[in-house]
Amino acid sequence: MKKLISLFLFLISSIGFSQTVPSKEILESWTDEYWQHGLSLLEEIVKIPNDAVYPEQIEANINWCEEQFSNRNWSSERLETGGIPILLAQKVNPNANKTILFYFHIDGQAVDRSKWNQPDPYQAVLKERDANGEWKTIEIERLENEYNPEWRIFARSTSDDKGPFAMFLTAWDALVEKNSEPDYSIKIILDFEEEQGSPRLPKAVLDYKDKLEADIMLIMDGPRHISNQPTLTYGARGIAEMTLTTYGPRLPQHSGHFGNYAPNPAFLLAQLLASMKDENGRVSIPGYYDGIEFTEKEKAILEAVPDDEQTIQTRLGIGRTDQVGNTYQESIQYPSLNIRGMESAWVGPEARTIVPATALAELDIRLVPESDPERLFSLIRSHIEKQRFQILDHDPSDEERMKYPKIVKLESKISYQAFRTSMESPAGEWLRSAMYRAFEEEPVQIRISGGSIPISPFVDALNIPAVTIPTVNSDNNQHSPNENIRLGNYKEGIQTIMSVLTEPLN
Amino acid sequence: MKKLISLFLFLISSIGFSQTVPSKEILESWTDEYWQHGLSLLEEIVKIPNDAVYPEQIEANINWCEEQFSNRNWSSERLETGGIPILLAQKVNPNANKTILFYFHIDGQAVDRSKWNQPDPYQAVLKERDANGEWKTIEIERLENEYNPEWRIFARSTSDDKGPFAMFLTAWDALVEKNSEPDYSIKIILDFEEEQGSPRLPKAVLDYKDKLEADIMLIMDGPRHISNQPTLTYGARGIAEMTLTTYGPRLPQHSGHFGNYAPNPAFLLAQLLASMKDENGRVSIPGYYDGIEFTEKEKAILEAVPDDEQTIQTRLGIGRTDQVGNTYQESIQYPSLNIRGMESAWVGPEARTIVPATALAELDIRLVPESDPERLFSLIRSHIEKQRFQILDHDPSDEERMKYPKIVKLESKISYQAFRTSMESPAGEWLRSAMYRAFEEEPVQIRISGGSIPISPFVDALNIPAVTIPTVNSDNNQHSPNENIRLGNYKEGIQTIMSVLTEPLN
Repeated sequence: MKKLISLFLFLISSIGFSQTVPSKEILESWTDEYWQHGLSLLEEIVKIPNDAVYPEQIEANINWCEEQFSNRNWSSERLETGGIPILLAQKVNPNANKTILFYFHIDGQAVDRSKWNQPDPYQAVLKERDANGEWKTIEIERLENEYNPEWRIFARSTSDDKGPFAMFLTAWDALVEKNSEPDYSIKIILDFEEEQGSPRLPKAVLDYKDKLEADIMLIMDGPRHISNQPTLTYGARGIAEMTLTTYGPRLPQHSGHFGNYAPNPAFLLAQLLASMKDENGRVSIPGYYDGIEFTEKEKAILEAVPDDEQTIQTRLGIGRTDQVGNTYQESIQYPSLNIRGMESAWVGPEARTIVPATALAELDIRLVPESDPERLFSLIRSHIEKQRFQILDHDPSDEERMKYPKIVKLESKISYQAFRTSMESPAGEWLRSAMYRAFEEEPVQIRISGGSIPISPFVDALNIPAVTIPTVNSDNNQHSPNENIRLGNYKEGIQTIMSVLTEPLN
Repeated sequence: MKKLISLFLFLISSIGFSQTVPSKEILESWTDEYWQHGLSLLEEIVKIPNDAVYPEQIEANINWCEEQFSNRNWSSERLETGGIPILLAQKVNPNANKTILFYFHIDGQAVDRSKWNQPDPYQAVLKERDANGEWKTIEIERLENEYNPEWRIFARSTSDDKGPFAMFLTAWDALVEKNSEPDYSIKIILDFEEEQGSPRLPKAVLDYKDKLEADIMLIMDGPRHISNQPTLTYGARGIAEMTLTTYGPRLPQHSGHFGNYAPNPAFLLAQLLASMKDENGRVSIPGYYDGIEFTEKEKAILEAVPDDEQTIQTRLGIGRTDQVGNTYQESIQYPSLNIRGMESAWVGPEARTIVPATALAELDIRLVPESDPERLFSLIRSHIEKQRFQILDHDPSDEERMKYPKIVKLESKISYQAFRTSMESPAGEWLRSAMYRAFEEEPVQIRISGGSIPISPFVDALNIPAVTIPTVNSDNNQHSPNENIRLGNYKEGIQTIMSVLTEPLN
């Protein structure tokens, strides 16, 4: 009897699901109905300049967002940070005991108007590609009756990251009208300083930990895999920085008088840097890659990513790659050690015949969950000491100059750590189910992205899984002039969010 | 009988010499008589701005010099070079069969007026040091009745190199009035583009080889040994330059997306440079130092130079020196390999999280007579090839990028070669005899100077010994604001030139 009841309840719930969970066809028809509404929202929000260097610009954006939430009967509150606030919006489902926390950012990169091929980077423009591959403006009114997935809307933040937020509002509006609201509660965090490195976010997450409580975090930012297939990204590398300075004579000296006598800081720096990596680009400091292993299953997932390595290498103009992993996807599973800048005295027409006083290298280290940055820094420090350098945290005094044969100043900073959610976690399975329903194909699954996003503070403070759902085209000129979003991606983005919002969680 | 006549002639000539060759005391008294005249000449010539970037400034200087020679019944002619000419002046002694060629340069370094502690860098100012070590202006008229060897005249080119030319004219004027003209003919070459690297000089020397013919060349430029004792310098290192560029991705790439994948050009450059020198600053390319050996006598001469190495190191702020030679003097007997500048992408506040597209090092190589620069370049090239770099003379094409795993662009230039006159040569002995007579002490003898001067074209084309007679104080701020000459050096410089001009040569 008990078994029968169980079966009955199971059937009821299954039937319930099949009735309320919209299929790919239904999601597509709803998207067709609402995408123009979505573009009006996008046009409206990109009109508001959003360079966080100017707080007054951000204030106008916050006001617009607050009004949107209020119009939709969401609550919202500003989480004060001592600077530009963070906006937390909520829609409680009284029947739900699960909550999803969505992350968007509303600020954008600065614009250099002279480099945009349109009068105003904050005024959306519709373009199509002509026979020569050039983007030509066409009347935006054509969207009232026409649609071409390859057309694009050009304006700052269309992709990064106002576009995804406008998609979300559109998906929400459609689902409310279709009576298909999610069976879970929603929180949304809007970051207004992401392009500035979210300097106040980590502390705010700790300060407002209780308000942010949720079960899963979904990051709505970043581009899809280069193949432009629906994508899920389960993590992002973290980032730490290091600056190394070596010392020669106190002031630059005539290279005739002191070449062969005063030690050259650029040679010292070259020797130190060269000792850190082998010819194949692998860090030669013992232990640097410790703890990184893939199961056969993980290897298969990495291999399933449809990267065309030959195309990537041709595009970059590189005849070989660093040998850290066997493939591009494998390479980003490891921490990196990258010289991002280097300088000593002058070059080119400014070059002078001197022994320089200093040489400096800026390094960045992309972190993975296995590589605690403190551990990496400690490995690097002991490696440097083994090269017989005295490590200082300041420019050497006269006394230190005379005392230590080789000196390096080491400055370091951990910007934020990596995060990575298990693909096998319930959150992962739940998202794959939603994505599969929306597109009837498996999404591209990225175990960890090479770049860094400030999400680890949430993951660490709230102790929840976090997954990124990128929607925009990868050639969107993010961070550059002529940022854009492909219409096909805009529509599929709405469809993606609808499928996530209608995926049963409770 | 023949022997007796020889003896008689020898005695006559010896007596003749002892009568006409002035002693230290006589030279000092003549100097005391003429140094104020000398300072008027100096004040007059430094008044004419002499930055060779402006040919009209140089024209005024040439005119002044031509007038000086003409007033003294010297012939002079402009040797045309296609640009700023060289001035050749001559005073033929009809009884002489030997000729000495003097070299001076009349152009000066550019001036940044804002950094000079006087209203006009071309208006000579007299200064004395106050109790705090600061230079304070005093009335130049005081020189009419007063003399203090520590006082200094401040103005551009007082030391480098109009000062020595004014000393020469002064010495000449005194000797003519004292009926003590040299027993040899004199040629003077005035270079008006030395601070520009004398770009037209090497060709002009070849073009006018016959006119320049002489037996000894004396270079009247540069500072005395730091001890400020009378100095003779028997040569100067030459100089060659090399620029190395390594390549990463065609354009800078996001270090998150491509750190561990796109080879980093700064690491490649560091590895290449590190392979060229050991930890002690010695070039590790086999053969680089070949052919350099000192006899015991030469070693003794190097050791006799009164360098205080501890003082030099403290002044430079270095706790150790490169181990190329055992002493400072030994170190400059070898060719150098110096990184004078290095650059890759951006550092400091400009630093971006990228894999740079290129990295570049500027090197200079100081040459010694044993190190033919073509041989050194060839050693360096084969060393680079052994590091498995493909050497190009241009930025790589797309095809070359894909073909060669490691590429370096190598650009090189030989500015001019070294020269070194044997200290044991007759010219060396003749000069030491003159210097000893002037000061009754042995001069400091520098086998070769670390820095470079454009003299090898003369030495090579005319096949004559060349020696530098530096006269000015080493702390003269040459090439910097507030250039000056110490009065004691100005007087001793006149005395030095008198002794050389009165030293019997025929």
